[in-house]
Amino acid sequence: MTGISLDLAGVVAGVRHRAPLVHCITAAVSMNLVADVLLAAGARPMMTETEAEAPAMDAVADTLLVNLGSLSVDGAAGIEPTVAAARAGARPWVLDPAAVGVAPVRTRLAARVLPERPAAVRGNASEVLALARRGTGGRGADATDATEAALDAAVCLAREYDTVVAVSGAVDLITDGTRIIRVRNGHPLLTRVTGTGCSLGALVAACAAVADPLVAALTATVWLGLAGERAAARAAWPGSFRVAVIDELAALSPADVAAGALLEEAG
Amino acid sequence: MTGISLDLAGVVAGVRHRAPLVHCITAAVSMNLVADVLLAAGARPMMTETEAEAPAMDAVADTLLVNLGSLSVDGAAGIEPTVAAARAGARPWVLDPAAVGVAPVRTRLAARVLPERPAAVRGNASEVLALARRGTGGRGADATDATEAALDAAVCLAREYDTVVAVSGAVDLITDGTRIIRVRNGHPLLTRVTGTGCSLGALVAACAAVADPLVAALTATVWLGLAGERAAARAAWPGSFRVAVIDELAALSPADVAAGALLEEAG
Amino acid sequence: MTGISLDLAGVVAGVRHRAPLVHCITAAVSMNLVADVLLAAGARPMMTETEAEAPAMDAVADTLLVNLGSLSVDGAAGIEPTVAAARAGARPWVLDPAAVGVAPVRTRLAARVLPERPAAVRGNASEVLALARRGTGGRGADATDATEAALDAAVCLAREYDTVVAVSGAVDLITDGTRIIRVRNGHPLLTRVTGTGCSLGALVAACAAVADPLVAALTATVWLGLAGERAAARAAWPGSFRVAVIDELAALSPADVAAGALLEEAG
Repeated sequence: MTGISLDLAGVVAGVRHRAPLVHCITAAVSMNLVADVLLAAGARPMMTETEAEAPAMDAVADTLLVNLGSLSVDGAAGIEPTVAAARAGARPWVLDPAAVGVAPVRTRLAARVLPERPAAVRGNASEVLALARRGTGGRGADATDATEAALDAAVCLAREYDTVVAVSGAVDLITDGTRIIRVRNGHPLLTRVTGTGCSLGALVAACAAVADPLVAALTATVWLGLAGERAAARAAWPGSFRVAVIDELAALSPADVAAGALLEEAG
Repeated sequence: MTGISLDLAGVVAGVRHRAPLVHCITAAVSMNLVADVLLAAGARPMMTETEAEAPAMDAVADTLLVNLGSLSVDGAAGIEPTVAAARAGARPWVLDPAAVGVAPVRTRLAARVLPERPAAVRGNASEVLALARRGTGGRGADATDATEAALDAAVCLAREYDTVVAVSGAVDLITDGTRIIRVRNGHPLLTRVTGTGCSLGALVAACAAVADPLVAALTATVWLGLAGERAAARAAWPGSFRVAVIDELAALSPADVAAGALLEEAG
Repeated sequence: MTGISLDLAGVVAGVRHRAPLVHCITAAVSMNLVADVLLAAGARPMMTETEAEAPAMDAVADTLLVNLGSLSVDGAAGIEPTVAAARAGARPWVLDPAAVGVAPVRTRLAARVLPERPAAVRGNASEVLALARRGTGGRGADATDATEAALDAAVCLAREYDTVVAVSGAVDLITDGTRIIRVRNGHPLLTRVTGTGCSLGALVAACAAVADPLVAALTATVWLGLAGERAAARAAWPGSFRVAVIDELAALSPADVAAGALLEEAG
């Protein structure tokens, strides 16, 4: 660990103390896990995606997640006005560009909202490459590119849009365009449970309600990664593992998260 | 316990025996838990919300839940004709006014269907206050008002609309406008799992297929509360707790529910 | 077991090796379980249902599931062009005619896509009878007809549409119009968990990416049935059982599936 002085414990404690209301426009397939992950972490979920209600309800939220996964017609219509509402209220928002590159509606939508100053962008390598117009996207929820292959794209996106980019993979990369931090927490079983990536995006949004985006993205990544490590120590198969991850997210203390972080800062 | 002679055991046995088909128009985020809770209790779920199909399919159901949580455009269009179909067929229906007060479409919709004689209304204190036009609603799924603060609103709603109102909270209040019963069952971990409130609304609807609304609301509240108490005795964290609640709903016998009820009747 | 020489172990090994991407247009209520079942089995899920994206994204998939359960307006619009895309790409697709007979939109839609050469059709007895225009459908997810009552309808459908028909029930019937195979694997607790039928349809689609439809349907039925048997041996109630089923799907080896199959071939 080089040059990092990031107060991860303070972010976890902050989420537990403030219990931020996280407005999520997110994929139907993993909406329930995302909500349970937020509750386990100490935040509170609010799921509303329609154009008629999502912008209005965003006013009571503390932070916003926009995840493009399995985008419905309702969600597609609600995203832009809801992002505008979040910006108007000076609330942070996080973009999870699921399936960008492959999915035509989402690819155009991601390009339109990306200039709207997300606090952070979280995706896998293929999605980050596609967002930076350097790739064609992955297959379903899976990256077809290695994390390191997206490093340059992540740094460029972070600089161009003044945001933090978190590239998820076996090793996670997190950058604000200047600093580049690798996170070695996590466990392969996390890829065998639907929606862990979406849950990470939501947790970044929760943390962004109480911390600056770089440390928010870092804390969320370590927190979920550690929960996965601990869950794997007591559950060998994906059904039990999914339950254990939720348990561990709730059980991990701020000090646990800080002590368990496996970080490396480049340069 | 004062003045209560309500056959909770008979309601549980009735649900197990008749296995009512519960038509649910309900929030996407907790739809799966709601369905699993109904199956665990011995009822059967049917989820259909579109205007083109929900009214037609309601004819094969025994009872209807209308939950306004994370309302889709499909659901918004399907609710009024489906409630009309339930009424035409003399089937009971239950209103769960999730997010009323905060969400503009749902607030108007709730006001329109409330006169359509729901057997019961189940919500948290903020939702019940908003429904009675005495408050502005909560934040997301959370009440910002205490249960007792909604007592007068609940009694008034029950009288005006000839319904039973169940206000969920640390202590639940259930009233038909004349009797006021407090239920002290439950456990705080129930608030750490997404959709337990929605599940309670669905369980009220299931019980309303086999009992009068007051005892239906009371039985459902005790049944889920007791399942939470038992689950908490063997699961300390929310992932395991969620699994255990479903188990306990199925494991509780009619006699267990009657024996475990912690009721107080006012006056 | 008479006259069967079907390489079930090879299909399980094939799914694990190829990890087919299964495009699912499926019921919201069980979407998460379906995706987790696919991941546990070794396949990969992709959930996209809108008309604007589902046909385009199908090109990256290996196989397609069309499940009509709790059909949204998005899904209803997306199904026909997506089936056309799958056929144009010579990819197998599986039809799960949930609620056909009762639900008007789905009944018409099923009749329109049935001639589009599904590799397999999976439903309960009432749905198969309704699809063959010999019944009026079931109630919700439940058949009101016994499996054997649908045998003739299943054989006729298989012959008329050159497909494999799998009728799910206490004993499953699988036929390609010539061979008729009964599967005696499974456990009654599978009917106490929402979405196990939908999951079976998705698993048939996954297997159809690596095997011919008859052996694909057979393998999927045995695989999930055996997972249910093993799960029931360690979980007596539906919450724990659901978790255990996912675990067992992942834990079963190709040899386990072949050795545990309880098959009977007619004549």
